Amino acid sequence: MSDQACLYEGKAKRIYETDDPNVYRVVYKDEATAFNGEKKDVLDGKGRLNNEISSLVFSKLHEAGIANHFIERLTETEQLVKKVRIIPLEVVVRNVAAGSLVKRLGLKRGERFPEPIIEFYYKDDELGDPLINTDHIAYLKLAADEELSRVRKDAIRVNNVLTSLFKEAGITLVDFKLEFGRDENGSVLLADEVSPDTCRLWDEKTGDSLDKDLFRFQLGDLNKGYETILTRLGGVQQ
Amino acid sequence: MSDQACLYEGKAKRIYETDDPNVYRVVYKDEATAFNGEKKDVLDGKGRLNNEISSLVFSKLHEAGIANHFIERLTETEQLVKKVRIIPLEVVVRNVAAGSLVKRLGLKRGERFPEPIIEFYYKDDELGDPLINTDHIAYLKLAADEELSRVRKDAIRVNNVLTSLFKEAGITLVDFKLEFGRDENGSVLLADEVSPDTCRLWDEKTGDSLDKDLFRFQLGDLNKGYETILTRLGGVQQ
Ligand SMILES: Nc1ncnc2c1ncn2[C@@H]1O[C@H](COP(=O)(O)OP(=O)(O)OP(=O)(O)O)[C@@H](O)[C@H]1O
Ligand SMILES: Nc1ncnc2c1ncn2[C@@H]1O[C@H](COP(=O)(O)OP(=O)(O)OP(=O)(O)O)[C@@H](O)[C@H]1O
Ligand SMILES: [Mg+2]
Ligand SMILES: [Mg+2]
Repeated sequence: MSDQACLYEGKAKRIYETDDPNVYRVVYKDEATAFNGEKKDVLDGKGRLNNEISSLVFSKLHEAGIANHFIERLTETEQLVKKVRIIPLEVVVRNVAAGSLVKRLGLKRGERFPEPIIEFYYKDDELGDPLINTDHIAYLKLAADEELSRVRKDAIRVNNVLTSLFKEAGITLVDFKLEFGRDENGSVLLADEVSPDTCRLWDEKTGDSLDKDLFRFQLGDLNKGYETILTRLGGVQQ
Repeated sequence: MSDQACLYEGKAKRIYETDDPNVYRVVYKDEATAFNGEKKDVLDGKGRLNNEISSLVFSKLHEAGIANHFIERLTETEQLVKKVRIIPLEVVVRNVAAGSLVKRLGLKRGERFPEPIIEFYYKDDELGDPLINTDHIAYLKLAADEELSRVRKDAIRVNNVLTSLFKEAGITLVDFKLEFGRDENGSVLLADEVSPDTCRLWDEKTGDSLDKDLFRFQLGDLNKGYETILTRLGGVQQ
């Protein structure tokens, strides 16, 4: 890797340019943050685990024919991705009631939905990533109608692929957040990451959280949960 | 009116049975409440103004062919309506940015939307009437898909009729909240009230609020604003 400038430092990753103007190098950091950055900590090894898990997941999504930004895993903590312009939506897919939806609708945590629930949040830290509807999206011109229906379809396909993948690993895919972007041709691609930072994953037998809720609610050792996920998915354990 | 039992006492109205099992008598109260009941007061004459304005509006909606619960105005503070089972949705239509949406999306108060924005809130005081989307509505079985598209269409038609009605009165229809219900045949009818309690109405010339924001934010005399609306709509002034 040549010494390129860091384009963007986020809470979980650093994005670097590469010699190819359409390719970014993503470095996964060891930082854990929650509640819009209010709670944070450094957890050695987290960057590696998320990079390995996200690389593995995006490869599976490629195999399933779902367009995404992933090019290749470079090192334990780095991967190459296609550069996109991120659509400022957090696309949440829910199979089981948990997190903010339990409060919003007064549900029982753990209720399984007969059909997945899809939600769009406006990706805007200052506004606190509010829930929005398709009329808001149209007014703010966040995505065109065709783009939104592509996003919705892909989100459902991702859910189907990942639900099976995790089920085979004895893990329940409770919910997850996706981000999509537009490549240089304007095609919509799944981007960002799919990791225990962005999914709720419960051990199928014990119901234990294996994801960032370990950190959010101090339920246990985050790295241990993430390591369990990587191992069960058949990835390398350190 | 025979002495029937009060079926339900809400914040703004009392609902009574009548001799006809499909008909309710609605009595508009003089109470004003805001912020989910946290702020309240009694304002003599408010009940009359809302009953007169709502009767007038629902008559206009009947003339425009929009199915609704209104039967007739009985007295200054009472009207007869068809009994419905209320669909627990607050259907909000917005033409101009104001209120909670300004905060949610970080908009400038007063921006006009090129197309009306429709929102669904789950009518549940304990949950604080949260914004929800169509997947939430389906999961909670609040309304069937066909009902929801009827509600959406009628909401747009109501908006068209009322925008003109108020415009002729020199008033801007900023936004409003509707409730729908199912009659004994399962047909969807517009119900509840359409009044300055449930609409944001601004004087077209001065921009002054003529609606419940007068009370919410202590901007001035609520009854004076409501009286202005009734007079300009051609209703009777006390
Ligand atoms: N292929 C891509 N091309 C361009 N940007 C990307 C791509 N994949 C992800 N991103 C963006 O890079 C950033 C990744 O950093 P990180 O996840 O650490 O951000 P963050 O702290 O969550 O902040 P943000 O609120 O911007 O997501 C995000 O803004 C994400 O949307
Ligand atoms: N035609 C109708 N048939 C049955 N119920 C109706 C009809 N029209 C309105 N209602 C209901 O009657 C009640 C009217 O009372 P009011 O507006 O004072 O209630 P509220 O204090 O706003 O409480 P709520 O949260 O229940 O609306 C509301 O619950 C409303 O949904
Ligand atoms: Mg991120
Ligand atoms: Mg009411």
